[in-house]
Amino acid sequence: MAFSRSSSILFFIFSLLSILINPTISSRASSFIKLPHSSVTSYCESWRLASETNNAGTWKVVPFRCKNYVKNYINGGQFDEDYNLVASYAIAYAKTVKLGGNGKDAWVFDIDETLLSNIEYYKAHGYGSEPYDNTKFNEWVVQGKAPGFGASLRLYKALKKLGFTIILLTGRDESQRSITEKNLRDAGYFGWNRLLLRGHEDQGKAAAQYKSEQRSKVAEEGFKIHGNTGDQWSDLQGFAVAARSFKVPNPMYYIA
Amino acid sequence: MAFSRSSSILFFIFSLLSILINPTISSRASSFIKLPHSSVTSYCESWRLASETNNAGTWKVVPFRCKNYVKNYINGGQFDEDYNLVASYAIAYAKTVKLGGNGKDAWVFDIDETLLSNIEYYKAHGYGSEPYDNTKFNEWVVQGKAPGFGASLRLYKALKKLGFTIILLTGRDESQRSITEKNLRDAGYFGWNRLLLRGHEDQGKAAAQYKSEQRSKVAEEGFKIHGNTGDQWSDLQGFAVAARSFKVPNPMYYIA
Repeated sequence: MAFSRSSSILFFIFSLLSILINPTISSRASSFIKLPHSSVTSYCESWRLASETNNAGTWKVVPFRCKNYVKNYINGGQFDEDYNLVASYAIAYAKTVKLGGNGKDAWVFDIDETLLSNIEYYKAHGYGSEPYDNTKFNEWVVQGKAPGFGASLRLYKALKKLGFTIILLTGRDESQRSITEKNLRDAGYFGWNRLLLRGHEDQGKAAAQYKSEQRSKVAEEGFKIHGNTGDQWSDLQGFAVAARSFKVPNPMYYIA
Repeated sequence: MAFSRSSSILFFIFSLLSILINPTISSRASSFIKLPHSSVTSYCESWRLASETNNAGTWKVVPFRCKNYVKNYINGGQFDEDYNLVASYAIAYAKTVKLGGNGKDAWVFDIDETLLSNIEYYKAHGYGSEPYDNTKFNEWVVQGKAPGFGASLRLYKALKKLGFTIILLTGRDESQRSITEKNLRDAGYFGWNRLLLRGHEDQGKAAAQYKSEQRSKVAEEGFKIHGNTGDQWSDLQGFAVAARSFKVPNPMYYIA
């Protein structure tokens, strides 16, 4: 009797072990615990890629069903890894550029989501899934406490060391000049040639138009724009474009 | 004695059950079976994004450590999903275009990895991790058995229905005209306005230069190029660019 009970228990153990050992059943069991690729995740991956490649066109907010996906992407490490690799490609390219030694070899940087991170603000506002609120965002900006991106600091310092002239070109308003300069310095940036902000005459212009005009003026001064780094396609496209453009990731908002 | 043996067996069963039920231990066990995000996967995701956004610059082969990643991306469904969403964005845009009704509203398509899929060839050649072999690839091309992409067929048919004039612009050689036409028809494409292939005078030209020149000629004939679809940035950039460009994914090769 006892023996027969033991053997049925042993049979049960072997059944359990076979489930654990059989890779088909095990992986099915593991997918029951955590779906590695739900259809929502899969859609949101496609959406993020379409946005990063400028296929999605203009969009106002992160699709609501992708809010958690964007949150996980940003906080889970992949965003940092993606960002970091772009910086590495930019540094590798910069090292191949033959500099004229006349101070006219320029690299253009955007500021928000390029040099300075507003992720803390967006964390408190649905990771881009809530409509943009200009008033609230400017309240955040004037606090001047946006940290730098580690990867951008690495790129910036490498470019300075190589001898590039750094031009900062932002959609921020001229009225935000001093807080922006202070914020940049606090974040570790230094020694830029100029900081170009939107003046009176630039109000209402599309970002790509305004930024292309500013790059044109820089080029007319005799600068050669070897590189340009921005989180928006409107930072990089239009006219007077750089020899190489580097699009850093930003899954939270789109600026036309 | 029998009872004590049974109870130690029972203890063993409960231990096993606790491992199965405890989510922390279970997920650790499942990650032992299949790592959802190893550092290699994470690197390869960043590499693929950098390539798709044209941040990576020119590359010759898929990094060897990403061979299995690319294989899984292509065969696992995400590639199709990414492709499909680009086609949907293109159709949505096409529907907003006001057509002149004079037959001059054009849409340009690349062929390889845009209308026709060479994935079967690349599957047999390391998913892009082996150096490009022009002879072998042309042996595949002249068989004329490349299937169409489902998403591209959907886009193509939608554009035809809307009344766009279709221009096919490929890096394939003029000598491959008839097999290319046959292959396209067999794959389900029809009614294009013209098929532009590389002639004598185009040999040795960079793809972006050759394709820009061809688009220029088309524009000079009075066509308005509303859209352009290609798997390479060299299909889309340069001069005489389309009003909107759509970059379909291709993690297997890069054409400068």
